[in-house]
Amino acid sequence: MNRFIDINADLGESWGHYRIGDDDAMLSIVSSANVACGFHGGDFNIMAYTFAEARRKGVTIGAHPGFPDLWGFGRRVIPFSMHEIERIVAYQVGAARSMAAYAGHELAYVKVHGALGNLTEKDPAVAHAILNALKAVAPDLPVMAIALSHLETIGRDRGMTVLSEIFADRAYTEDGHLVARKEEGAVLHDADFAAMRAVRMIQAGAIETVSGHMLPTRIDSICVHGDNAQSVEIAHKVRVQLEQAGFTIRHGTGA
Amino acid sequence: MNRFIDINADLGESWGHYRIGDDDAMLSIVSSANVACGFHGGDFNIMAYTFAEARRKGVTIGAHPGFPDLWGFGRRVIPFSMHEIERIVAYQVGAARSMAAYAGHELAYVKVHGALGNLTEKDPAVAHAILNALKAVAPDLPVMAIALSHLETIGRDRGMTVLSEIFADRAYTEDGHLVARKEEGAVLHDADFAAMRAVRMIQAGAIETVSGHMLPTRIDSICVHGDNAQSVEIAHKVRVQLEQAGFTIRHGTGA
Amino acid sequence: MNRFIDINADLGESWGHYRIGDDDAMLSIVSSANVACGFHGGDFNIMAYTFAEARRKGVTIGAHPGFPDLWGFGRRVIPFSMHEIERIVAYQVGAARSMAAYAGHELAYVKVHGALGNLTEKDPAVAHAILNALKAVAPDLPVMAIALSHLETIGRDRGMTVLSEIFADRAYTEDGHLVARKEEGAVLHDADFAAMRAVRMIQAGAIETVSGHMLPTRIDSICVHGDNAQSVEIAHKVRVQLEQAGFTIRHGTGA
Amino acid sequence: MNRFIDINADLGESWGHYRIGDDDAMLSIVSSANVACGFHGGDFNIMAYTFAEARRKGVTIGAHPGFPDLWGFGRRVIPFSMHEIERIVAYQVGAARSMAAYAGHELAYVKVHGALGNLTEKDPAVAHAILNALKAVAPDLPVMAIALSHLETIGRDRGMTVLSEIFADRAYTEDGHLVARKEEGAVLHDADFAAMRAVRMIQAGAIETVSGHMLPTRIDSICVHGDNAQSVEIAHKVRVQLEQAGFTIRHGTGA
Repeated sequence: MNRFIDINADLGESWGHYRIGDDDAMLSIVSSANVACGFHGGDFNIMAYTFAEARRKGVTIGAHPGFPDLWGFGRRVIPFSMHEIERIVAYQVGAARSMAAYAGHELAYVKVHGALGNLTEKDPAVAHAILNALKAVAPDLPVMAIALSHLETIGRDRGMTVLSEIFADRAYTEDGHLVARKEEGAVLHDADFAAMRAVRMIQAGAIETVSGHMLPTRIDSICVHGDNAQSVEIAHKVRVQLEQAGFTIRHGTGA
Repeated sequence: MNRFIDINADLGESWGHYRIGDDDAMLSIVSSANVACGFHGGDFNIMAYTFAEARRKGVTIGAHPGFPDLWGFGRRVIPFSMHEIERIVAYQVGAARSMAAYAGHELAYVKVHGALGNLTEKDPAVAHAILNALKAVAPDLPVMAIALSHLETIGRDRGMTVLSEIFADRAYTEDGHLVARKEEGAVLHDADFAAMRAVRMIQAGAIETVSGHMLPTRIDSICVHGDNAQSVEIAHKVRVQLEQAGFTIRHGTGA
Repeated sequence: MNRFIDINADLGESWGHYRIGDDDAMLSIVSSANVACGFHGGDFNIMAYTFAEARRKGVTIGAHPGFPDLWGFGRRVIPFSMHEIERIVAYQVGAARSMAAYAGHELAYVKVHGALGNLTEKDPAVAHAILNALKAVAPDLPVMAIALSHLETIGRDRGMTVLSEIFADRAYTEDGHLVARKEEGAVLHDADFAAMRAVRMIQAGAIETVSGHMLPTRIDSICVHGDNAQSVEIAHKVRVQLEQAGFTIRHGTGA
Repeated sequence: MNRFIDINADLGESWGHYRIGDDDAMLSIVSSANVACGFHGGDFNIMAYTFAEARRKGVTIGAHPGFPDLWGFGRRVIPFSMHEIERIVAYQVGAARSMAAYAGHELAYVKVHGALGNLTEKDPAVAHAILNALKAVAPDLPVMAIALSHLETIGRDRGMTVLSEIFADRAYTEDGHLVARKEEGAVLHDADFAAMRAVRMIQAGAIETVSGHMLPTRIDSICVHGDNAQSVEIAHKVRVQLEQAGFTIRHGTGA
């Protein structure tokens, strides 16, 4: 059983005058902040602020590249070739690494966002493209991957350090994939249920499907959200329940 | 008298389906390519292509950050605070460094673009902001600065390596500044005159003003343009005349 | 003394996944909605939704064009020529008129946003540019103008129907202009004070300056904001106080 | 046999400092200009200029709305719902109508661009969405549709005036659809062949497939391109050959 577990969240997604999420609250809950890099959200100001706040609060930071789709918030599959996906990732990781240095902090990992992340569950070519980019521009950085995704398995096959993550507020299909957002019940809204399910999954080292079946998998991190008051409450309860179950919350490989 | 001189040009300014400049021709003329970083021009594809081509042709590369103003091509002063200018530069330099690595090349310097560059002639605070960004995220990289600008003098005062540049196709006022683009005669169109004036300036180590007065200054590089057939011709003649005058064309500090 | 008064607010400023302001609350308070047109805020979805909701709640709608500056929310002066300002306004008014028709509603006026609006206090050329655009593309639509601005006086001189507006939550200088947002005290935060000041100004047909001096002016509308809970409270109290003072709240020229 | 035929081209696709196509040459060849509306190309300046030039040269103008995808030039299918497609079209048609009025000209039709146009060959729902938008915001304007597309047939079924177009420089499959751009031979490069094929198709009232089979269809207009010197030459020869074959070139329904 793991004695350590990481809690990560997507942060720094505001842009210009537009605000999304309660980043201040979330930075007091998570151990890892996936920070948007200016393509699906985030800008040079927001990145500088978020990295500096993460440093102040002792939160580990990762680059969180997504499709260049601010309007769609990176949640739509935009048509790009595999070479273009490599470059989209390479560009954003470089920008994030520089902004982290500017803010006196340091990138510790990379996690891809939204629709780009979801593609890594279905399309091994996308997983390879992301890994090609990281091998070229940030071979030192671990990649955080959805548990049971192609990115997780191919990343390990290619010798990368992979951090496997599960989701606190998302339902899982019987084969261990995320239920699509548009499906009924895809997103969990009951904070207590989500928090207890999180503890069950991490203690068991397994994904709990909609039917209650447990699929064994490696778990280094659990992803929570901070878009609204309810999601912040879920995140908070996940942390509290994990701590009560004896886990130390910190970034890194589990165990 | 210098025995070496650098020729630089702004390249990689295309974006998506839109093309600007004859980059292929220019990469055979210049020794240094200032590559746009996605804010006033350039994108992840164009950057990857331009860096790879520069490498193939043995051309040194620099990051060329500008205002986030694609519509205005970075030639308009957009209102940003000094802290925002720091972050605008830090973001783009990081993205460029990463894209250079992706393309198998390596950044050798930074030169700011357009209106941001012109501000360094008038406003020492902008020069400081640019230098703050570089000190934080790329202290190893020289900055290319307009000769006689605040960026040149403050950069040297703050211990940075500064490459001083003059312009082959721009007229100079009597105090050594660029005549504003909107003024009559600001841009030279006679390739032979421009090329011979370039040789005179570099041999003398001085800026030649509109009246023919020579203002002594350090010159490490001369900037040429490649936007249209005429500007490519000027660039070509500048190179030929400099070589005939005995100069070796290469990136670096002059002398 | 007026028996009718209009209350207007800037609405429809969300964009993509990003939300700004409590439009639902505000559409139950105001009689006129200034709807962003996609340049500084708003998009085709938000415009369609806002116009349809305004129609459902019986709220009059106006086009609210601003600078093409989504990042800066239209609050920065972006460098454009007077001809470009004409075109920026013409484009947005046409888009808004079409989206209003799409939503089953109809534009009743035009009010320019943010920095573009503020320029009409200082620069008669900007007032002329806006009026040139409206004369060309929407000569039937009244223009809502800041009381005592060039747009108000030049608009009337040029034979346009002008709706003069004052601001419920902004302080006024001794010559009747808005105190700049960056100045201390520029924005009022006390809902009761703001509401009572609004009644005083409308009853007197005069702007109340910081010192309490009253500058006579025509007043057809009072602008309120809905960005945060406090501003919604101010808007609500302004409406309640005006109704208690015997005013009927409706769009149109005062009387 | 038709005695009149229209020649149309996509124009006004430049944006900011970026230039695409030789619009000046094309405005002397075509009878109808499909003018980009700011989403996949074009901006308020370019639209004003293009409409004014079209008016000066007696060229009929149409709105040419596309996906909001400046980077991809409207040639990629971006994920939008049918309601969103309605709004995307409604917004752009309104903006174009207004810019035409600003330039002293008047819209005479609407033609959708690129990937959005190509979807009307395959997806009747997209055809309905486009028609819904036009019914709501421009019921007076004919729609130009790809011959044999759903937009053509559904448009006529729904009582719209439809102008059917064929393409001068694109190969046709055996069922009368455009060969996809990525296929070998999709774009014709031989100006003489293209011009003679155009005359054959218009005289026969039929689409000529790759194998030479003729598929009868209504033809009101033929589309030419102006992206490069070769395409301008094709356009020019198409016009010359049609005139030599006795056709009068003008916008409108054929006959």
